[in-house]
Amino acid sequence: MGLKTKEEYIESLRAMNPTVYMFGQRITNVVDNPRIRAGIEATAATYELAEMDEYKDLIVTTSPLINEPVNRFTLPPSSIEDLVARVKINRTLGRRVGTCHQRCTGLDCLCALSIVTYNIDQEHGTEYHQRFLEFLKHVQKNDLTCNAGVTDAKGDRSLSPGAQPDPDMYLRVVEKKADGIVVRGAKVHQTGSLSSHEIIVLPTRALKPGEEDYAVAFAVPTDTKGLIHVVGRSTLDLREIEGCDIGNRLYSKYCPTVIFDDVFVPWERVFMCGEVKFASQMVLTFSSFHRQSHGGCKAGKIDCMIGAALTMMEYNGTAGASHHRQKLIDMIHRAETLYGCSLAASYEGKKQPSGTFFIDPVLANASKIHEGKEMAEAIRLMVDIAGGFVSDLPSDRDFENPEVGGLLRKYMKGVDGVPVENRIRMFRLIEKLALESADFVSDIHGGGSPEAHRVTILREVDLEEKKKAAKRLAGIEE
Amino acid sequence: MGLKTKEEYIESLRAMNPTVYMFGQRITNVVDNPRIRAGIEATAATYELAEMDEYKDLIVTTSPLINEPVNRFTLPPSSIEDLVARVKINRTLGRRVGTCHQRCTGLDCLCALSIVTYNIDQEHGTEYHQRFLEFLKHVQKNDLTCNAGVTDAKGDRSLSPGAQPDPDMYLRVVEKKADGIVVRGAKVHQTGSLSSHEIIVLPTRALKPGEEDYAVAFAVPTDTKGLIHVVGRSTLDLREIEGCDIGNRLYSKYCPTVIFDDVFVPWERVFMCGEVKFASQMVLTFSSFHRQSHGGCKAGKIDCMIGAALTMMEYNGTAGASHHRQKLIDMIHRAETLYGCSLAASYEGKKQPSGTFFIDPVLANASKIHEGKEMAEAIRLMVDIAGGFVSDLPSDRDFENPEVGGLLRKYMKGVDGVPVENRIRMFRLIEKLALESADFVSDIHGGGSPEAHRVTILREVDLEEKKKAAKRLAGIEE
Amino acid sequence: MGLKTKEEYIESLRAMNPTVYMFGQRITNVVDNPRIRAGIEATAATYELAEMDEYKDLIVTTSPLINEPVNRFTLPPSSIEDLVARVKINRTLGRRVGTCHQRCTGLDCLCALSIVTYNIDQEHGTEYHQRFLEFLKHVQKNDLTCNAGVTDAKGDRSLSPGAQPDPDMYLRVVEKKADGIVVRGAKVHQTGSLSSHEIIVLPTRALKPGEEDYAVAFAVPTDTKGLIHVVGRSTLDLREIEGCDIGNRLYSKYCPTVIFDDVFVPWERVFMCGEVKFASQMVLTFSSFHRQSHGGCKAGKIDCMIGAALTMMEYNGTAGASHHRQKLIDMIHRAETLYGCSLAASYEGKKQPSGTFFIDPVLANASKIHEGKEMAEAIRLMVDIAGGFVSDLPSDRDFENPEVGGLLRKYMKGVDGVPVENRIRMFRLIEKLALESADFVSDIHGGGSPEAHRVTILREVDLEEKKKAAKRLAGIEE
Amino acid sequence: MGLKTKEEYIESLRAMNPTVYMFGQRITNVVDNPRIRAGIEATAATYELAEMDEYKDLIVTTSPLINEPVNRFTLPPSSIEDLVARVKINRTLGRRVGTCHQRCTGLDCLCALSIVTYNIDQEHGTEYHQRFLEFLKHVQKNDLTCNAGVTDAKGDRSLSPGAQPDPDMYLRVVEKKADGIVVRGAKVHQTGSLSSHEIIVLPTRALKPGEEDYAVAFAVPTDTKGLIHVVGRSTLDLREIEGCDIGNRLYSKYCPTVIFDDVFVPWERVFMCGEVKFASQMVLTFSSFHRQSHGGCKAGKIDCMIGAALTMMEYNGTAGASHHRQKLIDMIHRAETLYGCSLAASYEGKKQPSGTFFIDPVLANASKIHEGKEMAEAIRLMVDIAGGFVSDLPSDRDFENPEVGGLLRKYMKGVDGVPVENRIRMFRLIEKLALESADFVSDIHGGGSPEAHRVTILREVDLEEKKKAAKRLAGIEE
Repeated sequence: MGLKTKEEYIESLRAMNPTVYMFGQRITNVVDNPRIRAGIEATAATYELAEMDEYKDLIVTTSPLINEPVNRFTLPPSSIEDLVARVKINRTLGRRVGTCHQRCTGLDCLCALSIVTYNIDQEHGTEYHQRFLEFLKHVQKNDLTCNAGVTDAKGDRSLSPGAQPDPDMYLRVVEKKADGIVVRGAKVHQTGSLSSHEIIVLPTRALKPGEEDYAVAFAVPTDTKGLIHVVGRSTLDLREIEGCDIGNRLYSKYCPTVIFDDVFVPWERVFMCGEVKFASQMVLTFSSFHRQSHGGCKAGKIDCMIGAALTMMEYNGTAGASHHRQKLIDMIHRAETLYGCSLAASYEGKKQPSGTFFIDPVLANASKIHEGKEMAEAIRLMVDIAGGFVSDLPSDRDFENPEVGGLLRKYMKGVDGVPVENRIRMFRLIEKLALESADFVSDIHGGGSPEAHRVTILREVDLEEKKKAAKRLAGIEE
Repeated sequence: MGLKTKEEYIESLRAMNPTVYMFGQRITNVVDNPRIRAGIEATAATYELAEMDEYKDLIVTTSPLINEPVNRFTLPPSSIEDLVARVKINRTLGRRVGTCHQRCTGLDCLCALSIVTYNIDQEHGTEYHQRFLEFLKHVQKNDLTCNAGVTDAKGDRSLSPGAQPDPDMYLRVVEKKADGIVVRGAKVHQTGSLSSHEIIVLPTRALKPGEEDYAVAFAVPTDTKGLIHVVGRSTLDLREIEGCDIGNRLYSKYCPTVIFDDVFVPWERVFMCGEVKFASQMVLTFSSFHRQSHGGCKAGKIDCMIGAALTMMEYNGTAGASHHRQKLIDMIHRAETLYGCSLAASYEGKKQPSGTFFIDPVLANASKIHEGKEMAEAIRLMVDIAGGFVSDLPSDRDFENPEVGGLLRKYMKGVDGVPVENRIRMFRLIEKLALESADFVSDIHGGGSPEAHRVTILREVDLEEKKKAAKRLAGIEE
Repeated sequence: MGLKTKEEYIESLRAMNPTVYMFGQRITNVVDNPRIRAGIEATAATYELAEMDEYKDLIVTTSPLINEPVNRFTLPPSSIEDLVARVKINRTLGRRVGTCHQRCTGLDCLCALSIVTYNIDQEHGTEYHQRFLEFLKHVQKNDLTCNAGVTDAKGDRSLSPGAQPDPDMYLRVVEKKADGIVVRGAKVHQTGSLSSHEIIVLPTRALKPGEEDYAVAFAVPTDTKGLIHVVGRSTLDLREIEGCDIGNRLYSKYCPTVIFDDVFVPWERVFMCGEVKFASQMVLTFSSFHRQSHGGCKAGKIDCMIGAALTMMEYNGTAGASHHRQKLIDMIHRAETLYGCSLAASYEGKKQPSGTFFIDPVLANASKIHEGKEMAEAIRLMVDIAGGFVSDLPSDRDFENPEVGGLLRKYMKGVDGVPVENRIRMFRLIEKLALESADFVSDIHGGGSPEAHRVTILREVDLEEKKKAAKRLAGIEE
Repeated sequence: MGLKTKEEYIESLRAMNPTVYMFGQRITNVVDNPRIRAGIEATAATYELAEMDEYKDLIVTTSPLINEPVNRFTLPPSSIEDLVARVKINRTLGRRVGTCHQRCTGLDCLCALSIVTYNIDQEHGTEYHQRFLEFLKHVQKNDLTCNAGVTDAKGDRSLSPGAQPDPDMYLRVVEKKADGIVVRGAKVHQTGSLSSHEIIVLPTRALKPGEEDYAVAFAVPTDTKGLIHVVGRSTLDLREIEGCDIGNRLYSKYCPTVIFDDVFVPWERVFMCGEVKFASQMVLTFSSFHRQSHGGCKAGKIDCMIGAALTMMEYNGTAGASHHRQKLIDMIHRAETLYGCSLAASYEGKKQPSGTFFIDPVLANASKIHEGKEMAEAIRLMVDIAGGFVSDLPSDRDFENPEVGGLLRKYMKGVDGVPVENRIRMFRLIEKLALESADFVSDIHGGGSPEAHRVTILREVDLEEKKKAAKRLAGIEE
């Protein structure tokens, strides 16, 4: 037990036996499947950095719960310092992996449960918090990765869960037994579900009386019976399968649909069951944490994009173009805005009744609103700087072809002194950074839809205080 | 001779024998290769519509040159009406194919040559214009598709063509013979080169004395000896190869790198050879026409995106969400802005000495500047409206899998009454509309880089008139 | 009768006797009041240009109605050429006066009446169109300026006219007599009401059965009994009153509130009375014409702003700053976008049953949406380029003060060779162009609120066609 | 000595005798001049809040230098807590006064001097730091307000200070005496110079050897002999002079040009004299602090604007309009972004050799870049929500006029239950918030031009780290 090395992490996944489908086929060796493995490697970076002198202090700390060194990805924050560390680690990792490292969502669930189970217990006299702490000890002691099972299938979005023609469109309890519950439904866009040891399920929206079956939170291992992971398509997935024309040579991302086909959960892993009033608090707490996480990792991804754009300017001979420098500044500005608002949300965090610290939701959502709009703009700027070969670069196999490879290398040459291979590789990376669907869509929909972020800041700020200020200056008494 | 049917067009391509590589392999049957064929189908739509009652009047007209009905894609404009028709046809086709139809670039070359060869002759006493008209007759009589060979490899972009370490980084004449010239170089991002009968080469930038070898314009069949087409990678290319998970079920786009490995061009097909002073005029005239073309087709592509977003709102049950309606309006506004500026550029066109009409370059570039920035935003809005399955929808093969297909279909259901297949297909289409690299990058770099469009409007407007107006109002006499 | 010279125009206003208040005082000599006069001068430019060789052809044409030369500001368009001329004249005038020339609104009413009175007559068998044509002859023969009385006081905007606690919040008929009607209400933001001979009143919104009293259109002279003009405050109004620190030395703008305190209108000047069904068509037709007008004049105003910014770059020694050039391009791009969409709306106009041509409403509104957002950005860019003295330039009286004037001139000097007075004057002009409230707010609210423009394009485009296109590509049959 | 009450502050200004001109006249009673007084009141709020129970803890702390309670506006930060307090105080004050409170610039000079004088001494063996600390004690013990004399007249901006035709275009030492120096030049845009007891002068830009005379920093009382304050025009200045149609009934802002007409400065108040190498550090340190300040106060000003917009929605009956809610969110988002980045810049501050803490310059400039662009957008949104009377509301004197006042009040009524006076007052406030030139221009140029902020973030981020990250992922070794 204790901190896992990168290798131990991968072997621990190898020891699991999840039910997985991809391209219509059952996948049995998850860890050595190149597409899934590229995602696992991204999560593995969270273990690797914990071993590296350069990053160890950033990532490893002592858990007050088990009084042992833990990876911060298993640690609900018990101080402002912990909140801030989340953002800085995520930026470091985002820059390092150039995509999503996939380990934040589980942590964000742990953070939310650490606050809300306590609050439920206070009102309902339940014992969820203690159950949760036992689970958390297990996670910390074994340095586990968890996955956030939050987003439901949703069916007809104009109807509430209880009003859907098919009652399973939101995950629900279909049976309660002496030793646990049976749940049915699907959680979609499950980033890194196969890089995780456990999946933590939370409700995805506010619920009302009569929807008790949907108010359920729990954790189960990702290879639990009845759990089916279907790895969907992404734009560049076959590149990894074929081992050819890969942009990010080290890491990637995948987001299965996870079906809960009547899965049994023992009571000791059930953290909410029927308390509809707290569904909203649970999902909002999770989401706000997750939006803070994005402020770090996406800034880190823009760092990569800036680095790629800048390198391409050097390779293309356009490093001196003043309009390109302006575009770089626009990219930097976006990265720092995401980061700044997310950092501020952390520093302005507040202690909750359970002792866990919660971020400032307005500032965290302010960061996310920028992400939802500005990541696309940062991508556009990078592509503008890089040039047209982002769209149609010949394949590695063409470059290797004895008949045309030499000619292609001749014509792909940029400035003197830079090997043509480097320019080719950087174009591939930029294609990946720009047009990998998993990342592109997560910039927009990760952590809830853009409108959800917007509504949150309207709801959370003190509008009365602002009206009062304006009326005083206008000389209006009330 | 005369107008080709869609089938005749495809058979005419089948009769050609170009040298083609893709994924490191020589492709001999171009027309039946599913990836290339999807692109050919898009161009074929320009033939198909000319046969359809609904569109015939829009696309077919009588050429004053051959006095026969021709497809407008072979017709340099000899009136404002002709200029305007270009934009409207492009919007119709953009909406119909949902991607690039690939036949405008060749027309834009014909338009530019039709103006500039005349101007060169006036100054140099050459006979390029007559040669060009003969070629044009051939194109019109056979209803040919041409491809624009404009963008060079460029090497180190801080160096002019003549100063490159490798003199071939811009296509150049390496030998002049009695019966023609031999050229060497590469033209990159050659959208639809294999959907074309002819490739028309123009210089890609202004040139100066001493760079005469680079000042060359000509046309050769796309299967000429020495011409090598290398079809590069795009994000979704293997979907077409595999016939699975295809978003746009009818059309696609591809953009080979075309290498001119010492290609012979007979004098009667040489339209410029050494007149460096006119290189700038040639490329600017072409580019301005091409930017006008984009104003039509990209508005048409946004039409598709609006249609997809709206349909998805209906499928998801979000048709009543006021924030989604605002996003639709933002999409519509972008489409109409591209279209409006491009239309205005056409209506404000002017007759040139050769008799051909030229668009207003400021308004055409104003349209293109919007495209370079706002297509990405339109995509982002569409993805925002559609939801997360743009990123990770399970494969068709998963849906067909007997073990999980049923469960997947159950959970992918949207509103009642819409077959789940429809929702799945619309997600796939949106993925394609958003994340196909060929289109995505062409929005930004097609018709020259965004900075080129910007510099053009600064250069072309009358700044003195504006200063004079301001000084008069300020009471400043000079 | 016939075309008025500028002087005749001003004398014709002097002959009128409107009821006017400003700063709490009754104004009897309107024409020589410096604040109002500056606005009258702007309208006078529409007469002056009609006399100038340079502009005559642009502005004067023959009216098919009276078969005499008329100023185009009295001419409902009977051709595409007429529609296009509107935009070009407005751009020319906007650039010349650097603010609003105030004569378009009346023309836009004439245009709307020319279409809608005919349509009402067709349905109701009324004789409004003939009455209108008689009025139009009067306007054309006397080269009159009309003012658009459209925007009502509106009261509680969540309530319809008939549901307001005070029934006068929308102008209405309070009495019908044998020889005419009596109306009561107020029309607000009446740009140039005192520069006009006639005020033309239209309903401001759609109406429903039961609101017949509000469905009223008519024209009365601006000095009719019961009409009260209250000239409100604008940010820089006292500069004109005091004749000091004036930015635009020639022209300005003012927008009274006009109260109809039981005004009698003879039947021959009533163009609609009770036909609620047509209220919506009337206001939408007017608004669309007015939005097209803005596309011209506001582009002209940006021209002035570009000229001012560019001149200031030369005066400040920043003409070589590449980031300032980028900002100029951003300004030019905005001007051309407004203009391009408005031009396109004109070229794509369609003949209406009455014979009058109507613009394309989608493109006209696309232009206006840009205005509502981008004029503010153009202003910001101009101020960014100009520098801080836009905010706090010493007064002319300080510059004239013997004790400090010399020191101030010493320190206000820019580049060598430019008189310091010129730099001072240009700063004043920029202050006026940026921060005059009448223009600033008109950019946003002129021609209806931004949301009105947005809703219009959503309503007017063919959404079904777009959905059909997307479904075809996705392979969805219905 | 010790903390001043608001009244003591005003009386202390009354005891001073500065040389002041406005509208060409000498002003002798500064404190009772209504225009200047409105600005003094804004600064007085910093004293008033220090007396109020609600705000005391935020504003008053103990100075480690004099070991007495001080107002934080006299306190260079010696901890992260101090840095953060700056932002929070500024937001509170910005919201309270709805404009600039004018006391931050002097503090930002104190902060910069507190760091840079120490650094100069370390390199040059000078004694500036000790002199500065003595001055600081004086400021703290007397609770003084200081003004930042930074921006020079600049003349031809393409020339460095030493190359100007007139050597006085940047303030410089013209004589060195035994007891002090004599300086000549002008500092422009001197926000609140007459609300201040002392003016602190710093160089405005980097300097090079040969420009020693320009490398000067010092403090003198604002009524020192030779110092001339010329209060320039702002858009709404005469409203305050006339006491009529005032939007912000409590506070305002003014920004004189301050001429140093051979002013003597005793050596003990000279904090830099000839050390050209440190000019850049001095101005950059000041500017970065000042940009952090803006992140607070401008967020506070947006708070007022949100309050005004929201109140107007209630008064107009548009509180339920979903598009207005979206605009409110856009305003909130901008406020929180400015605030968040500025807060983050504070929390990420670092201790400097002198013991003073300095903010993170990248995050502070990221905040300011948003301000320079987004304040104008926030204004536009507020005006969009409020409606047209921002431009042309009748004067208070019209409302008081017995003949038209009643009619005006009738027609200005909004929703039932809100006194018409309140609606009128709120329109006036919005006019002031939107169109007061001093604030409008400060949003853009305050703390240096927008390009300065942009260049700073490009210079300060670690670009190499980003390139390294991208190359690693692309598989490029170097």
